[in-house]
Amino acid sequence: MAGHDRILYELVGRDDRRFSPHCWRVRMALAHKGLEVATEPVRYIDKDKIAFSGQNLVPILVDFGEVIYDSWSIAKYIDENYYQERSLLLGGGTRFVSHWVDSQLQPVLARCIVKDIYDHLDPADREYFRTSREARYGKTIDEMHADRDANELNLKRTLSTVREMLRTQPFVSGKAPAYADYVMFGAFQWARCVSPFKFLDEADPIASWRSRMGRLYGSLANSVPHYD
Amino acid sequence: MAGHDRILYELVGRDDRRFSPHCWRVRMALAHKGLEVATEPVRYIDKDKIAFSGQNLVPILVDFGEVIYDSWSIAKYIDENYYQERSLLLGGGTRFVSHWVDSQLQPVLARCIVKDIYDHLDPADREYFRTSREARYGKTIDEMHADRDANELNLKRTLSTVREMLRTQPFVSGKAPAYADYVMFGAFQWARCVSPFKFLDEADPIASWRSRMGRLYGSLANSVPHYD
Repeated sequence: MAGHDRILYELVGRDDRRFSPHCWRVRMALAHKGLEVATEPVRYIDKDKIAFSGQNLVPILVDFGEVIYDSWSIAKYIDENYYQERSLLLGGGTRFVSHWVDSQLQPVLARCIVKDIYDHLDPADREYFRTSREARYGKTIDEMHADRDANELNLKRTLSTVREMLRTQPFVSGKAPAYADYVMFGAFQWARCVSPFKFLDEADPIASWRSRMGRLYGSLANSVPHYD
Repeated sequence: MAGHDRILYELVGRDDRRFSPHCWRVRMALAHKGLEVATEPVRYIDKDKIAFSGQNLVPILVDFGEVIYDSWSIAKYIDENYYQERSLLLGGGTRFVSHWVDSQLQPVLARCIVKDIYDHLDPADREYFRTSREARYGKTIDEMHADRDANELNLKRTLSTVREMLRTQPFVSGKAPAYADYVMFGAFQWARCVSPFKFLDEADPIASWRSRMGRLYGSLANSVPHYD
């Protein structure tokens, strides 16, 4: 990747699927600012490739030689260094949205799509993924998949607050999208990149918002392989 | 209240307790902007007193003759009309925080303090409150009070996202308080205005934040009768 001024290291599955919710937060935040970026795919087992960052998780942004990791820190870096008149609105309740998505939404959604994630991984990543996720959730991937109906009910309950809010305004952030939208959308993009699982009715305000998000910035999120 | 340019109609219990969480959001938002306000106490049964607003809920702000109700609408009005350089940060995730507090935090907290609210009401309000709350929650006030241990567990689980976030920044809104803080704080102020129920350890980051909030704007929230 020598020769690129800005590189985003992001998680990749088989067939070049870029499915990480945290990486999508950053992709959307860069697009919000109109910043070009080259991406560098990283599998779970490619720890050597990102050892330069001093830790072992993506996303990692290398910006003119500066190395930043952790999606919130990257968003802050971008927001402070570029086009402040086009703010990501990291104040207000955005940090709460980020913690809520991490601790409430994503774990519930993960249980619904974990087998689909597994199926879309590079074969070399599967053993690591199975072992770590089965330890994290205390169930086998097949057990979680078998429980999908119960997990879907839980997901619908979890989404109720998002749904009620999106009845009152077009974006999580207000009249226009900003980082709170990218955090929320990362979870939905994660799901649709790897899973045919349908959990939103067409009439759901969340479905309309997800469509609006997919069309942003030259349909960035729609331009990658995904399920409809 | 003739002669006052700005009047906030707010809920009152016995002994002048001002305990409504939605009214506290507005009190704090007005203080954030440095705006003086006279308050006019309203009991649940005082519907005639607020009929002028065309609806039957407080808070209602009358600002130089303009009548605004609904706490979010009042916050928007204040933010658009006064001192925009001292923004309430209503964008970002603030609307999500508001919906989350309304739909997740307050119902869980209500079950823990409902008997204490009842005990602090003006006697004339008690019958209305008992009937409406017992219908809303599907249990008698005494049954909810007897379930307080189970409800407290549920409350602690609900607060976990707030707690994790406040480990990373001093206010919900970031380095300084704004409307997302006032929405969240409204729930805590509601509780401590009427209830001796302790549900935060001293070491809890939420307890430190609540103390910081109580000291804002000349200790506005600490200056009213409350439990410690």
